[in-house]
Amino acid sequence: MVKRPDARRRSEKSRRAIYDAALSLVGDVGYPRTTVEGIAARAGVGKQTIYRWWPSKADVLLEAFLDLGERVAEEAGQQPYRIPDTGDLAADLKAVLRATVDELLDPRFEAPSRALAAEGLVNEQLGREFVAKLLEPQLQLYVERLRSAQEAGQVRAEVDPRIALELFVSPLAQRWLQHTGEISHTYTDTLVDYALHGLAPR
Amino acid sequence: MVKRPDARRRSEKSRRAIYDAALSLVGDVGYPRTTVEGIAARAGVGKQTIYRWWPSKADVLLEAFLDLGERVAEEAGQQPYRIPDTGDLAADLKAVLRATVDELLDPRFEAPSRALAAEGLVNEQLGREFVAKLLEPQLQLYVERLRSAQEAGQVRAEVDPRIALELFVSPLAQRWLQHTGEISHTYTDTLVDYALHGLAPR
Repeated sequence: MVKRPDARRRSEKSRRAIYDAALSLVGDVGYPRTTVEGIAARAGVGKQTIYRWWPSKADVLLEAFLDLGERVAEEAGQQPYRIPDTGDLAADLKAVLRATVDELLDPRFEAPSRALAAEGLVNEQLGREFVAKLLEPQLQLYVERLRSAQEAGQVRAEVDPRIALELFVSPLAQRWLQHTGEISHTYTDTLVDYALHGLAPR
Repeated sequence: MVKRPDARRRSEKSRRAIYDAALSLVGDVGYPRTTVEGIAARAGVGKQTIYRWWPSKADVLLEAFLDLGERVAEEAGQQPYRIPDTGDLAADLKAVLRATVDELLDPRFEAPSRALAAEGLVNEQLGREFVAKLLEPQLQLYVERLRSAQEAGQVRAEVDPRIALELFVSPLAQRWLQHTGEISHTYTDTLVDYALHGLAPR
């Protein structure tokens, strides 16, 4: 059944308000103290409005993050959920990682992402759900790009792409998560160069 | 002033009991709900005993982790806080990373480490303190080993060792922290091979 345009617009507006409320609340008070009631109050809707669409706070947050990622990518003029394939693997990886640095430094993203990552460390079920639905699909885009590079002879055939991507993705993740170092475009460019060419002399 | 042997033994015993209590408590209830009072109760000492040696719960935990790391390394027959230098860089890195995998999978280490890492994600001051006192000194051992490899011509001279080490350390950290994949000796061996030789054909 096609909804009337007015109802759909209202519904879209509520949905966006709920996403924003969920992200700001989890950033402010952390995951354990975030409740569906709290999200509803901050969004100015009844809690039944939330339960109509999502079974739990974890589900609201998952969708809110997916939506935020799409919005940030759109504003940056990127195709979300794609890694470019220009034939130049180093350039393509550097472009995506530079955009990721910008997203990680975006204040809208920072607090809620940290709150959720922190909870994922100690709450194994939530951690695994968010990895499966949010993180792993992004990592699979690198797997595809590296496979394409293997076909083009730019990556050694015996390399496992799922492990290989971690050489440039995980250092950025750890610096951002654990404050072990600054993150910048120069830094991620360097990671790509080291990973592709290796530390040993050629 | 030299303490009497009896007093020192008693003091060592209390200290160990306090470390064990601090680690098990933070693993059970998380960092925010861990208190000096709670540690004292679990260790069977008065809270003044704890305050005599440490100004805060963060300081107790920091020392408890340093002590745990030393105990685990000792039991494994390793020289703590050293990376071997046999002249074979790949073999030396693989040996240390295999030992790190074993430590990360040690049940005594798992829950308290996760609790503390989770708190470090959202509590920037604590995160930075633990990185500076606990994590960074360990990473500097890799810096030294890579510098020695540069002098021996086994790592390119223009490589920054502080970034280079992240190619094999950070993937292991992310898999363990975020449950993004299994960790094993085969996995860390592969990371070392990819990092040293690069993903691109030679």
